[in-house]
Amino acid sequence: MTKATSDIEDLIDLMARLPGLGPRSARRAVLHLIKKRGPLLTPLAEAMARVGTTARECLNCGNVGTADICDICNSEKRANGQICVVEDVADLWAMERAAVFKGRYHVLGGTLSALDDIGPEDLRIPKLKSRVASEGVTEVILALGATVDGQTTAHYIADELAGVSVTSLAQGVPVGGELDYLDDGTITAALNARKQF
Amino acid sequence: MTKATSDIEDLIDLMARLPGLGPRSARRAVLHLIKKRGPLLTPLAEAMARVGTTARECLNCGNVGTADICDICNSEKRANGQICVVEDVADLWAMERAAVFKGRYHVLGGTLSALDDIGPEDLRIPKLKSRVASEGVTEVILALGATVDGQTTAHYIADELAGVSVTSLAQGVPVGGELDYLDDGTITAALNARKQF
Repeated sequence: MTKATSDIEDLIDLMARLPGLGPRSARRAVLHLIKKRGPLLTPLAEAMARVGTTARECLNCGNVGTADICDICNSEKRANGQICVVEDVADLWAMERAAVFKGRYHVLGGTLSALDDIGPEDLRIPKLKSRVASEGVTEVILALGATVDGQTTAHYIADELAGVSVTSLAQGVPVGGELDYLDDGTITAALNARKQF
Repeated sequence: MTKATSDIEDLIDLMARLPGLGPRSARRAVLHLIKKRGPLLTPLAEAMARVGTTARECLNCGNVGTADICDICNSEKRANGQICVVEDVADLWAMERAAVFKGRYHVLGGTLSALDDIGPEDLRIPKLKSRVASEGVTEVILALGATVDGQTTAHYIADELAGVSVTSLAQGVPVGGELDYLDDGTITAALNARKQF
């Protein structure tokens, strides 16, 4: 193996460690990159180098950005007394794409899990409590997954945050969802939460 | 949007252009990269930069490497008079993983296609003919896909290469394959090519 071929092998091995890519799709991606050197490979390498040097977590909310305090935490417009609690940054981005929430966020970085031995200290929950106290927060919106761990975490946080209104996302039929394809739990939740038409 | 956030957005957009990745999986991959900056993001950026500067196509066979002539074409051990014709580099790599073929390769870079207006000149077929003449080739093994375009290309090449033995991969039941799951064409081919047990 010459240096070069091993260069390509190294790149394939690294690509294969990305979520959603296996050895096979990593090979396909690398061949595509080599074919598209100018338009794709070089810009991608540069973009990765840039992000590698600039990206960091917001010290306040855990969002990903380049500054120690992210844009959302810096923006006065977002200081409306609402904090939306999400499991990780992907959820924060999903909320931002929906562009319906105008307050600030708090990224837990996971959910409480007895099995994986993840406690409140591992999840920025103390930081959340201090923010609620210091940022004049009036409402904490829990946007956690409808999983056992997610709901456990939601209940724990609700107990911890006394004296501030704690709400959570509504459960029900998703937009475009057909009853026939919905699980019993969702239908039950949607029926119990039915509202005047 | 600060510079930083747009850096991350740029990276996501570029990642989403890789085969097998969409916008959603690109976001997941980028978040994973940002979490794993040291162990993954930085090495990946460096590996891409390296490959971007070094990788090129072998002038002789079309394989991907760093030199103008690839290792296989340079190795005297592989000069056994056999040339295996494949559609693209991924097929060459697949053959090499099987580690059964000891000769050299010729990468066409696609298949003849009237629809996409791809002719012999677009496919290194002239180069193949000159190699057969100059490299003392005794057998050309056609390892092309069992598709219409692949077989059309195979027939065209066989016609072009007079005076040298042209063979093609056998068709039949794949190793581990169950008849119940095989298409009629494969079963027909396997039956017609049956051999003494």
